[in-house]
This record gives sequence, C-alpha cells and structure tokens, in this order.
Amino acid sequence: MYKVEVFVTYKESILDPQGEAIKGSVHRMGYNDVQEIRQGKYFEMKIEKKEQNIEEIVEKICDKILANPVMESYRYNISEVE
Amino acid sequence: MYKVEVFVTYKESILDPQGEAIKGSVHRMGYNDVQEIRQGKYFEMKIEKKEQNIEEIVEKICDKILANPVMESYRYNISEVE
Repeated sequence: MYKVEVFVTYKESILDPQGEAIKGSVHRMGYNDVQEIRQGKYFEMKIEKKEQNIEEIVEKICDKILANPVMESYRYNISEVE
Repeated sequence: MYKVEVFVTYKESILDPQGEAIKGSVHRMGYNDVQEIRQGKYFEMKIEKKEQNIEEIVEKICDKILANPVMESYRYNISEVE
C-alpha cells in the first residue's frame, strides 16, 4: 500500500485572505512575531500497491481534482506502508 | 526566521465526508485503487526568530486557532530559514 501526502497551497502571487484573517487572530492573541500565515489543503491518500506508475497517477489526481493549477501549486510525497 | 508547517487532520474516529466525496470523483476518473482519501488543512507560518519558546507558541496557536482539539489532531515541524 502506498501512502501519499499532498500539500496544496496558493501560488505566491495569489492573495490568501483566510490566512490574513488567521494572522489577525494570532496577533490579537499577542503573538505579534508571526509575520505570515498562509492556509492550504492537505490530503492523505491510500493507494493499492499494484499501481505501477504511482507518480503519474498522483499527478493526474492532483491536477484534475485536488488542486486548481491556475491558482494553486502542489507537492506530494509517497511512502510505502503495510 | 522560523518556518513552521502545521498539518491538521480529523481524528481517525471522525467521518470525513469531503474526503469521501473526493474519493468518489477519483474513482469516476478510473482510479479504483485509491482506497481512502482524507482531507485536512495545511498552514505555513513565518515567525520571527527572537521567540525563544517557539514550540510552546506553535502549540498554543494550533490549540486555539488552527485546530479544533475535539475533532482534529495536528502535527507540525519547525525549520529555520533566512
């Protein structure tokens, strides 16, 4: 079995209003040294190991479903689990 | 400067309907070997390095703002960047 972790974040040039709002809350808690917060999405997938071309499959799933390639970028890592 | 990555996921016992819906889409794409998808949140924070007790601060921010400790668990990693 493969365990795949996918991290989807807005591209640097895209504003992240939710991250800005969270930063405001963090500052109101008194942590003014937090300079930036950006929110993204995180996915954990379990995929049966018979798939040969696991990276190709993961990239297709990311491009078509998990991320919006216009505004978001993603990275992933694949590990083998029991 | 510290760069902090936070991963927030539902606890195992909590249903993740969004992850289930995504799994449905992935199966309709033909990738039936994907057995499980769970969605979580991902945050990147930049924190000024003068903070001494960085782990304590990160945990407070996670417990109070980024995660709901009743339903979610989180993990984080801290690295030093320029």
